[in-house]
Amino acid sequence: MKQCIDSKAVINRLKRIEGQVRGLVKMIEEDKRCDDILIQIGSVKSALHKTGQVILEGHLRSCVLDGIREGKEEETIKNLSTALEQFSRIV
Amino acid sequence: MKQCIDSKAVINRLKRIEGQVRGLVKMIEEDKRCDDILIQIGSVKSALHKTGQVILEGHLRSCVLDGIREGKEEETIKNLSTALEQFSRIV
Amino acid sequence: MKQCIDSKAVINRLKRIEGQVRGLVKMIEEDKRCDDILIQIGSVKSALHKTGQVILEGHLRSCVLDGIREGKEEETIKNLSTALEQFSRIV
Amino acid sequence: MKQCIDSKAVINRLKRIEGQVRGLVKMIEEDKRCDDILIQIGSVKSALHKTGQVILEGHLRSCVLDGIREGKEEETIKNLSTALEQFSRIV
Repeated sequence: MKQCIDSKAVINRLKRIEGQVRGLVKMIEEDKRCDDILIQIGSVKSALHKTGQVILEGHLRSCVLDGIREGKEEETIKNLSTALEQFSRIV
Repeated sequence: MKQCIDSKAVINRLKRIEGQVRGLVKMIEEDKRCDDILIQIGSVKSALHKTGQVILEGHLRSCVLDGIREGKEEETIKNLSTALEQFSRIV
Repeated sequence: MKQCIDSKAVINRLKRIEGQVRGLVKMIEEDKRCDDILIQIGSVKSALHKTGQVILEGHLRSCVLDGIREGKEEETIKNLSTALEQFSRIV
Repeated sequence: MKQCIDSKAVINRLKRIEGQVRGLVKMIEEDKRCDDILIQIGSVKSALHKTGQVILEGHLRSCVLDGIREGKEEETIKNLSTALEQFSRIV
């Protein structure tokens, strides 16, 4: 199973998230209010989740379809199932 | 309401998360499997959530207690309530 | 710490959720499509989460404030912190 | 796309969840502590999420595979993608 995502779009999303995490460090160094920090952590979590959904969409349309077409059904579904379980959990 | 968290511990957590996000960019550049990338996104989301819980714990024990002791009950609870709502959402 | 929520409103929400869960059983018995069932499970999870937020809001404004006013700060914050941790997790 | 889940196991899970929701109503009627109620809401949310994962697993192994085998790839992936998005969200 190879990679199957729009790398450019996903990397852009991840670079923005990296910037948001650096912004969080700055908020703490500058003694910002912790309720604002909590809200911002919620935003970053949400941005990561959306990035995961973009990757998942590409994964379904490409790797998963290819894997099934090539007859590797058991392996493809098992890997997808594990990935979904890990991706959709929180703690 | 001032900040009330163990800055050092939280900044260390955030720096690790920043490193994990950079690791995700690298995984994409190196064409890693997207099910592994999804699992890793789940880990980063989880690490952010735990960091938020550490901040929340400090926030409750310090800012929230202080705000209530100082008689700013309405404002303190309203801000906490908003922060919790934003922090505990996903999308 | 006593209970401190608008029982009537919360019970109404929970009765609706109970109905939604019974609706899910019916969907399965009637062989409805499982993607529709998954979407409906998402709705029920969301309804439960919102009910929890209503309870939390009342809890903060009543039990938590009272506990702190009565000097039981350590106990109040510890219990709130545990409840929040359990409430905001998924798996 | 027809249904493709182990109905009996899923219905048992849903009946338990229905019982848990009724238990929540009782906790409120009996003036139980609201932090315990919040923890219990977290448990029900988690039980629903796990039920969804069981349904999803069966859905992938049956409907999704069948849909793709039958050449309805675009429709199958689009429906799965929508269902996953709704199922993995919280608010």
